[in-house]
Amino acid sequence: MKRNKRAEHNSRPTGRPLKTVKSSLSGKIGQPAGTLYHTGRQKTESPVITVFGYDENRFFYRDVKTLHECEQFKEQFKVLWVNIDGLHEVQIIEEAGQLFGIHPLTLEDIPHTVQRPKIEEFDGYLFLVLKALELDAASGDVAEEQISMVIGSNFVLSFQEKPGDMFDATRDRIRNEGTAVRRKGADYLAYTLIDAVVDHYFTILEHFESRIEELDTNLLEAEGHDMFQSMYSLKKDLIHLRKSIWPLREIINSLSREQYSTLDGASIHPFFRDVYDNIILIIESVESYRDIVIGMHDTWLAVVNNRMNEIMKVLTIIATVFMPLSFIAGVYGMNFHYMPELEWHWGYFSVLGGMAVIFAGMMRYFHTKRWF
Amino acid sequence: MKRNKRAEHNSRPTGRPLKTVKSSLSGKIGQPAGTLYHTGRQKTESPVITVFGYDENRFFYRDVKTLHECEQFKEQFKVLWVNIDGLHEVQIIEEAGQLFGIHPLTLEDIPHTVQRPKIEEFDGYLFLVLKALELDAASGDVAEEQISMVIGSNFVLSFQEKPGDMFDATRDRIRNEGTAVRRKGADYLAYTLIDAVVDHYFTILEHFESRIEELDTNLLEAEGHDMFQSMYSLKKDLIHLRKSIWPLREIINSLSREQYSTLDGASIHPFFRDVYDNIILIIESVESYRDIVIGMHDTWLAVVNNRMNEIMKVLTIIATVFMPLSFIAGVYGMNFHYMPELEWHWGYFSVLGGMAVIFAGMMRYFHTKRWF
Amino acid sequence: MKRNKRAEHNSRPTGRPLKTVKSSLSGKIGQPAGTLYHTGRQKTESPVITVFGYDENRFFYRDVKTLHECEQFKEQFKVLWVNIDGLHEVQIIEEAGQLFGIHPLTLEDIPHTVQRPKIEEFDGYLFLVLKALELDAASGDVAEEQISMVIGSNFVLSFQEKPGDMFDATRDRIRNEGTAVRRKGADYLAYTLIDAVVDHYFTILEHFESRIEELDTNLLEAEGHDMFQSMYSLKKDLIHLRKSIWPLREIINSLSREQYSTLDGASIHPFFRDVYDNIILIIESVESYRDIVIGMHDTWLAVVNNRMNEIMKVLTIIATVFMPLSFIAGVYGMNFHYMPELEWHWGYFSVLGGMAVIFAGMMRYFHTKRWF
Amino acid sequence: MKRNKRAEHNSRPTGRPLKTVKSSLSGKIGQPAGTLYHTGRQKTESPVITVFGYDENRFFYRDVKTLHECEQFKEQFKVLWVNIDGLHEVQIIEEAGQLFGIHPLTLEDIPHTVQRPKIEEFDGYLFLVLKALELDAASGDVAEEQISMVIGSNFVLSFQEKPGDMFDATRDRIRNEGTAVRRKGADYLAYTLIDAVVDHYFTILEHFESRIEELDTNLLEAEGHDMFQSMYSLKKDLIHLRKSIWPLREIINSLSREQYSTLDGASIHPFFRDVYDNIILIIESVESYRDIVIGMHDTWLAVVNNRMNEIMKVLTIIATVFMPLSFIAGVYGMNFHYMPELEWHWGYFSVLGGMAVIFAGMMRYFHTKRWF
Amino acid sequence: MKRNKRAEHNSRPTGRPLKTVKSSLSGKIGQPAGTLYHTGRQKTESPVITVFGYDENRFFYRDVKTLHECEQFKEQFKVLWVNIDGLHEVQIIEEAGQLFGIHPLTLEDIPHTVQRPKIEEFDGYLFLVLKALELDAASGDVAEEQISMVIGSNFVLSFQEKPGDMFDATRDRIRNEGTAVRRKGADYLAYTLIDAVVDHYFTILEHFESRIEELDTNLLEAEGHDMFQSMYSLKKDLIHLRKSIWPLREIINSLSREQYSTLDGASIHPFFRDVYDNIILIIESVESYRDIVIGMHDTWLAVVNNRMNEIMKVLTIIATVFMPLSFIAGVYGMNFHYMPELEWHWGYFSVLGGMAVIFAGMMRYFHTKRWF
Repeated sequence: MKRNKRAEHNSRPTGRPLKTVKSSLSGKIGQPAGTLYHTGRQKTESPVITVFGYDENRFFYRDVKTLHECEQFKEQFKVLWVNIDGLHEVQIIEEAGQLFGIHPLTLEDIPHTVQRPKIEEFDGYLFLVLKALELDAASGDVAEEQISMVIGSNFVLSFQEKPGDMFDATRDRIRNEGTAVRRKGADYLAYTLIDAVVDHYFTILEHFESRIEELDTNLLEAEGHDMFQSMYSLKKDLIHLRKSIWPLREIINSLSREQYSTLDGASIHPFFRDVYDNIILIIESVESYRDIVIGMHDTWLAVVNNRMNEIMKVLTIIATVFMPLSFIAGVYGMNFHYMPELEWHWGYFSVLGGMAVIFAGMMRYFHTKRWF
Repeated sequence: MKRNKRAEHNSRPTGRPLKTVKSSLSGKIGQPAGTLYHTGRQKTESPVITVFGYDENRFFYRDVKTLHECEQFKEQFKVLWVNIDGLHEVQIIEEAGQLFGIHPLTLEDIPHTVQRPKIEEFDGYLFLVLKALELDAASGDVAEEQISMVIGSNFVLSFQEKPGDMFDATRDRIRNEGTAVRRKGADYLAYTLIDAVVDHYFTILEHFESRIEELDTNLLEAEGHDMFQSMYSLKKDLIHLRKSIWPLREIINSLSREQYSTLDGASIHPFFRDVYDNIILIIESVESYRDIVIGMHDTWLAVVNNRMNEIMKVLTIIATVFMPLSFIAGVYGMNFHYMPELEWHWGYFSVLGGMAVIFAGMMRYFHTKRWF
Repeated sequence: MKRNKRAEHNSRPTGRPLKTVKSSLSGKIGQPAGTLYHTGRQKTESPVITVFGYDENRFFYRDVKTLHECEQFKEQFKVLWVNIDGLHEVQIIEEAGQLFGIHPLTLEDIPHTVQRPKIEEFDGYLFLVLKALELDAASGDVAEEQISMVIGSNFVLSFQEKPGDMFDATRDRIRNEGTAVRRKGADYLAYTLIDAVVDHYFTILEHFESRIEELDTNLLEAEGHDMFQSMYSLKKDLIHLRKSIWPLREIINSLSREQYSTLDGASIHPFFRDVYDNIILIIESVESYRDIVIGMHDTWLAVVNNRMNEIMKVLTIIATVFMPLSFIAGVYGMNFHYMPELEWHWGYFSVLGGMAVIFAGMMRYFHTKRWF
Repeated sequence: MKRNKRAEHNSRPTGRPLKTVKSSLSGKIGQPAGTLYHTGRQKTESPVITVFGYDENRFFYRDVKTLHECEQFKEQFKVLWVNIDGLHEVQIIEEAGQLFGIHPLTLEDIPHTVQRPKIEEFDGYLFLVLKALELDAASGDVAEEQISMVIGSNFVLSFQEKPGDMFDATRDRIRNEGTAVRRKGADYLAYTLIDAVVDHYFTILEHFESRIEELDTNLLEAEGHDMFQSMYSLKKDLIHLRKSIWPLREIINSLSREQYSTLDGASIHPFFRDVYDNIILIIESVESYRDIVIGMHDTWLAVVNNRMNEIMKVLTIIATVFMPLSFIAGVYGMNFHYMPELEWHWGYFSVLGGMAVIFAGMMRYFHTKRWF
Repeated sequence: MKRNKRAEHNSRPTGRPLKTVKSSLSGKIGQPAGTLYHTGRQKTESPVITVFGYDENRFFYRDVKTLHECEQFKEQFKVLWVNIDGLHEVQIIEEAGQLFGIHPLTLEDIPHTVQRPKIEEFDGYLFLVLKALELDAASGDVAEEQISMVIGSNFVLSFQEKPGDMFDATRDRIRNEGTAVRRKGADYLAYTLIDAVVDHYFTILEHFESRIEELDTNLLEAEGHDMFQSMYSLKKDLIHLRKSIWPLREIINSLSREQYSTLDGASIHPFFRDVYDNIILIIESVESYRDIVIGMHDTWLAVVNNRMNEIMKVLTIIATVFMPLSFIAGVYGMNFHYMPELEWHWGYFSVLGGMAVIFAGMMRYFHTKRWF
């Protein structure tokens, strides 16, 4: 949805569109709770469902069309991971609801992509909403994707808006025997997926650091117009980034401290504590970027101000020097019949000399005042 | 009340009037607690009372003139919903107080429309004050309406300042058999009504996003005067909006966590948690709008500053070029009898040539300094 | 004390004097705890003591000279209310201390009028310090008065700096049989008095709203000098107001939640909760006024900045147009013997024509740049 | 230490030196814990030790050379107060440590004068570090002195950097029989001493109020250069003051609430609550001073900005009026042979008339634009 | 790693590079938890391992190549301290993990030098990550080094990025019999090491104080360009410093309050409380530096603004004086045939006199307006 809007607004001067809520919700207002309704743009043609089942020794993988196909594997493996890419066919989500016993409010939240990241415990599972951020290398825009997870004691359902390679490393580790993910349960799988999402934020941070560094380098050189535009655009993007990441703090914190029925607290807490440390590092980086950009803006304003000062000095020096001299020339350009100086033989050169003295005096005065 | 004032102040340059407390309270000061007193403007001619009674199978609806008419239905249905539009006839509120056993302080609060949203538990019922916001499509102003609710174990009383269509979707769902609202109790009805109020905030958000986007588009083009006025007006409206919405955070939070005697906590908490997520999303959006508008203001100031810089450059270039040249022309316009250069045959053209050289030198100097 | 100082400083340009602590405390430093010492200015000639005694059926009122006169009524009535206006005769406060068993620290605090509002529980009574604010209609200044209350289980002592009509409504209600105050105890009387003090804040809010609205109307029209002065004065007054009101938040909150031995929690809490809602509304209003004034300051600065821009444009247009033209005129004013153009018959008109072309070109250039 | 540095830096333009940590700590880095090391400047020649012993009836006072002399009185009196002025002879502090059983970390903290105010409970005593502030009447500088207290159940040790009159009032009260301090224990003595320190802050507040008031009076009159310097210096001093006072809030709060083994909570809490109220009043005053100074800075900037505006207007009016007029004069100063207007008999006066009309038109235009 | 980058960016105008996260993490994304991976730059050639073993009477020291060499001493001494300088040979860290039973997540964190300071309790040990800051005397840059500690009940492992002299004082104290560190356990050794790290922050503070003081001295004298650059660079460094130190607050606080299995709370808490006081002092200093730099920036901007004002005044005075005078000269330079004044004998001197009168009037006017 976001990407689509970006395309529409490409002509706008300052980048990121602001419509995060607009129009996507107008259809939903007035719907009773529990109505499944996909808000946002359809980002993939038809949903892709992949099923992984594994325990320490066995491993199973299949692409399925409907979730009914994976019903049979539900109790066979220690962990069953169903990943669904594409949220616009709501009946797939409803099937998942029936199969794994999911509350209607959860089902309603999954395809509704304008949401705040959150964690909710329901009977038999934990429900997570995250925002994955991905950088569009071409345009430099940051695309947001909502990722929902349902974490049961022996299954994990993950919902993405479109197919992506974010979870590929996890898939590889499941395929390899002897990895930690194969030895451990569904909660460890969930940790691996969340960790993948959070790790991707570092790519975004790098992107912001590059932009800040670029501005930083140009700070005392570049032309004003573009600088303010770039800073403003950067500020807006940071506000947006902060809004996406901030709620993760409490979510991951609660995962690393509280006892949830479907997570094995003692063994999984240290891993989430690790993710939490990363989140704090990311948030503090974003905060410090913000402070730096504000400092840049102020510095740049001051530089512009200072440059104006320089221009004013030039203007004032020129005017202050030439106005009195022109005045003197004007006086001797008057046509009075009786102007005795005009008759003097050396009158002209005396006046020129006087002008030179005035000129030198002025220059000296400005030099004393350190105007140049 | 608000709308009325707006009309009065239409001639003011910056939109929203500030008198939120003024005059509406002067009449109330010094009144003993428990005195019913309608503050604010009468927004409807005569109050409209509608009564809905329903349980899973039965459904009943009537427009009544006095509340005594609905006394008979009080214990007949699982849920009785009395909606009163118009608060200026305080005896109706007093009747409701007698009929449903409501504390005098609650009765006093209902018609007193200058209040902060709040939640209060009394013996036998829960009392809520909310602020509904509605956009006046014509003027672009945001009108505020106070909505009070008394939630008993088997009844809901809702008080609005004027008739509106905010609850129509709920009315439709009650009319239809088999809907969730018919199956569940008074607490679910209350949730539905609160959800309707909160969902309407998104319309207001859309309105603000449009205004911000419009400013954003014009940021580097439009004329200054209007920009500052629009930004100032937008900032004031955001302050106002924030003040209306902020208290909802704690109210809905307490509804989604605490045990109230008239609410069935276990079953209703997830629904209010959902509303809470929406409230947080709204508040964070308002906060980020505020940050964006502040960023805009700073950027616009900087742009204006920069433009001044450009103007100063033009002025300085012109003055710096022509003042010395005019001075030279002035010198040769002097009327001294003995000015040898004037006699020279090529004097005039030499001076013109000298002026051209000075002109070129100046231009080069400014070019080096990157002034153009 | 405050009002007096104001008179002294009327000649200062920006209104409210800042000396809130100065000089009034220098006499007190170094005194042992428990020394009664009246800080502040004597605001009334001789203290006025009024005694109300009542229960549901009986009612008694008397003006007394010394507190010993009311000793006899101490146990006769359900509630005894002693109101003392004027704090400079400290022996009256000492008598009250003996009669009602008040701690020396409390006695010390009552006449010491440079204090922060606070609540303290002592053995047998609750001690409250509040700040009443009253608007001096003539000067527009806000006068602060300290009001102390000692709330026992069957008595209330209230101390004011000078006689006033703030509690008149309460007095009337005590005189009328059948009112809530007559039916209830000392805690309800205390609530009525506190509510009267808080209700008076709304008058102050109205005053500030008027000032803000006035500034708002003039924002895009008035002259700069006065605007900045008015805004600065308003900002200072808001800082002062906030400092007076802010501590009330916690005081009233604790009255509406905690169990105090001399208050009947269950029955009195809802009333104080009501006062608390008002306090929050007042504080949030003050905060939003502050935000609005800051926004105004920024906008006004921007308007001034923008106006400077306009002035610069006019200057630059004039200079840019006339400097080259004057230069041309200057050239043909030179007195060289051989200047062929001067001889041409149409030379003068050609030059005028050339000047007109230059003029038109300049105007077109500025029009393109949208300078006018 | 601070005062000394001030002297060194008197030539700096903006007053208070910033080196609060520098150099005084470099000697201490790398020392093992428990090493007594006096950081800061020696402020008195040789330490002065005074011993007070008293109970309700008896009273004893002596100046001693070494602490061993007071060993004999240790158990004889209800309260023993040892005051040591001068911290550079660390063996005296070590003796005190042995005599009263003080932890090495406490002993280390006493002569280390670059510390944050703090409270620490050790076995058998309570350790307090405070900062006393004293105004140097001559220079207007605020000198900081560290005061440490060790409060045992029957003794108080107080350490000052130099002799002073801060505790003289307390000394007098001990000398007089029948005073509260004689009736009560060591904790009340400690309260009296702390109260004396806090009361002295009010003198500093008065000093700041005077400075603010002075700036306030000059705000719309004085010259810019000094104003910014004064405001900057005031801002820096307020930052410093806040840093000294802020930690006291929690210290005194814990003294007024928590149970310490060497303090009789029930009886001493109300007294510290009183000190706490004063601290809060002081902190809020400092905060509001800060807000006022920020408001002043903004207002002054705006005034300067506005004045520039006025100057620009004058310049623009002059230039706009005289440039066209001079141009016209220049045109008729040209020396073309054929310029018909020059021959006209009334040509000169027509031109003068035309200039007058242009002048009047310009003036009218500026008047319409309200430039003067 | 940081130092290296600095070298690369030496040509950038504003000092410290911003890339704190960039590139160092890109290699780590997608790695499974528990993978040891050294992020950051290799700061030393080959890791240096030093082993100290001691109890009150015995003392042992050896430089070893592999950790297996110290296995034999593991249970022989009361305290075993293994210090490893250089993190790029991860197998050494793995060996330590096996030898002392360290959790894989801890092992993973040690060589990963882009981390937030943190404290984590694992079974049998406490894991700490700190940031040591060291000033590069030559360049004035602050280099950051990550120091990890594993604190067991009878051993301490410390990991540094490169060899340094930070712990030399501790080493000396271990060598000397009878010191506190020899008498006490592993927790006291850990305290000594942490204290050494924190004490080094004071050197950094001194460095910042020098820079601020230098700016402060130049504030009203130096040229604008450099000032803004210096302030901006200082602000960025303070943001960075704050980010490094801030997390220590909670870490040291928890060390000084909470019960950890491998620390002897009762005896070690007072020592960490001491470190905590230092941390608070450092943080508050950094905060106040920040406030001071912001105040400086504002003051400097105001000074620049004011200077512009002065320049404008000079320009306006000159223009206002000479434009009318030049105009008059221009009028009498016109070539009309009939200009009666030109014939007057004293015409020229009358005009000169008139000009002098105008000049004097202007000067007087500006003097009245206090323009000079």
